[in-house]
Amino acid sequence: MTAAARNPLAILSREDCKVQSLTVSDQHATLLLTSRTDEKAPDDGDEISATTDDQNTTTKTTQSLLKLTIVPFHKQLLGSNPVLSQEDIEKGQVAERNCLRHDPSASDKILSFLKQYTFQLSSDSGEEYSYYTASPEKGKSDPKDNEDMLSGIGKFDVELISPATPNQISRAMPSLGHVLIEETPKMYFECTKPYIQTVVDSGSLSWIKNLVEVKKEKERLLLNHDDFIINIDTKWRSHPPPLTTPREEWMNHPSTVDLYCLGICKQSGITCLRDLTSEHIPMLKGMMKEGLAAIKSIYGVDHDQIRVFIHYQPQFYHFHVHFTRLENEVGCSVERGHLVSDVIQNLLLEDYYKKRTITYKLKKGTALESIIGAYLEEHRD
Amino acid sequence: MTAAARNPLAILSREDCKVQSLTVSDQHATLLLTSRTDEKAPDDGDEISATTDDQNTTTKTTQSLLKLTIVPFHKQLLGSNPVLSQEDIEKGQVAERNCLRHDPSASDKILSFLKQYTFQLSSDSGEEYSYYTASPEKGKSDPKDNEDMLSGIGKFDVELISPATPNQISRAMPSLGHVLIEETPKMYFECTKPYIQTVVDSGSLSWIKNLVEVKKEKERLLLNHDDFIINIDTKWRSHPPPLTTPREEWMNHPSTVDLYCLGICKQSGITCLRDLTSEHIPMLKGMMKEGLAAIKSIYGVDHDQIRVFIHYQPQFYHFHVHFTRLENEVGCSVERGHLVSDVIQNLLLEDYYKKRTITYKLKKGTALESIIGAYLEEHRD
Repeated sequence: MTAAARNPLAILSREDCKVQSLTVSDQHATLLLTSRTDEKAPDDGDEISATTDDQNTTTKTTQSLLKLTIVPFHKQLLGSNPVLSQEDIEKGQVAERNCLRHDPSASDKILSFLKQYTFQLSSDSGEEYSYYTASPEKGKSDPKDNEDMLSGIGKFDVELISPATPNQISRAMPSLGHVLIEETPKMYFECTKPYIQTVVDSGSLSWIKNLVEVKKEKERLLLNHDDFIINIDTKWRSHPPPLTTPREEWMNHPSTVDLYCLGICKQSGITCLRDLTSEHIPMLKGMMKEGLAAIKSIYGVDHDQIRVFIHYQPQFYHFHVHFTRLENEVGCSVERGHLVSDVIQNLLLEDYYKKRTITYKLKKGTALESIIGAYLEEHRD
Repeated sequence: MTAAARNPLAILSREDCKVQSLTVSDQHATLLLTSRTDEKAPDDGDEISATTDDQNTTTKTTQSLLKLTIVPFHKQLLGSNPVLSQEDIEKGQVAERNCLRHDPSASDKILSFLKQYTFQLSSDSGEEYSYYTASPEKGKSDPKDNEDMLSGIGKFDVELISPATPNQISRAMPSLGHVLIEETPKMYFECTKPYIQTVVDSGSLSWIKNLVEVKKEKERLLLNHDDFIINIDTKWRSHPPPLTTPREEWMNHPSTVDLYCLGICKQSGITCLRDLTSEHIPMLKGMMKEGLAAIKSIYGVDHDQIRVFIHYQPQFYHFHVHFTRLENEVGCSVERGHLVSDVIQNLLLEDYYKKRTITYKLKKGTALESIIGAYLEEHRD
């Protein structure tokens, strides 16, 4: 898919584009865009084929995720077409099922609202991830209805994932709750590890290559070390626009209360915590020391204000480390986070992470949760 | 102090009672009550002596904490007399300093609001902790001003800590932020352990004795095992009133989304994670297994919905275990929580918690944070 076709307006303007809200809070909204296209694209599981009547043309349904940083004003409008009803959630309905369901009138209202904006590219992963600033375009809107409304709202930030894979959509879905897994080493080797290998083999990690070779998202790069890079994590949404804000203004910026940076290992093949051995200790120590020093020198935030940790299960299976401000508790609960300072000490003990039962939570309705559920069912005493 | 003197109304009605808000959210408020009393009480650090002019009578200043579950309506009134101004917080003002500062007119308004309620005892620790239901008493309020307001508000829950120690007040203060401590074994033995011993020796744990001997808070007891008890944690504020709600109504109650239970070891002398050895594995396994079974049988919540963990540093130095619903992320961040399933495995390795550097966060302005700060200053290379 070309970069132009990934501009939000290009997708929103497709004749059959439908929009549904996945999650809407006071500050953020994630929308699912569904549209059909004649464009030829690899059949990598994120598109649903459909044969139409005319001339045997194969059209495809493409789904994209649009993540907006919004003002509370938007909440009612954007939340008017939910992908899951409250009733669905209470029934424990599996998230994927209703992706294509929509309320046409609510969808049209959201579309016409979004089309009143221009979307300026601020960052681009070279793959499915791109970032925009949306600005109200006065000429485009109906002055009678919207002029006042738009001037009061101003710009907002947009993350676009297009095309979005079923996994990415599943992660963005409203939560159906979680389940705690006690993964024994046997379960890991027989069930989780083969799953991880299929994900790695699917080629979904190509955006990482662009990052660690510093071909993309240069403006988000904080440190380029021989063994790793340190970047601004895209979940740090309050960060001043990195492309247009001079770096000296990042020092002691108010948004550092939300500080979220990411260290990404250059070497591929370390998929997760279970793969770590004592030979990785120097890399881990380097990431922690150099990452904290870079954060101090760029943002002025001291090392005793930052937790450095990894996720198990991680969001993607290429080794990376999270740096977050103590006040920012996103994703750091004890059943998912592992402090790097603890991991380093544990790796001094033989095969620590290969011999352990590791307890972690999984979102219900995700692929791994289904696979582990089936495995446990099969291996019940 | 007698039970009667600990009724919120008795304290609120003292002539010189002053009230300040510590924290106020949409759902909860914590107030600091300061009053003087002639009553003789042990000098355990929670009262400030003052000699008055008349007849050499020694009066004492008593401070109490009042924690309310409120409706959003109350927020503006209760927050009108903050103990720390925004300016204080930005300056990093140490919390204790402003305990006695107050705005008399705002304090009077809050007092007259609270005095319009009757406070019915719902649970009592036998020591400084007691729990009430506050109901509007129509006869007491000025009908012209308040009848409509009160009828719209209804009852709320109240936790009273009286007298409150400086430590309890410090914990209830608005946060001045946290600091991450990397505690080496040397630091623990030379600095943290002696501090813990002074806290244990101060006798502040006598309320635990009442709990584990099931003399108090019987209505909160879920399981009485030879080695431990499992109780409803007082932080589970949405729990239906345990004294008056039949237990069969607890099953699948909507409040189980906030589930928070506590396992308390009967044996004293295990102050924290650092004291655990392999001999404690049966106790830990028992607490986890029996606690999860009790939660399933009483509330209907499955074991894969509950994380079982301990805190380091803990809130009090008598060994206890937290059971929380996955959705309830209070106090479970990776720099404070340790999953019991991990702890049990680690205890199979020799002296694991005695030989480890443990990373944890401390609130700025607390006693331990000051002590460790001074220690690190002294031992700087």
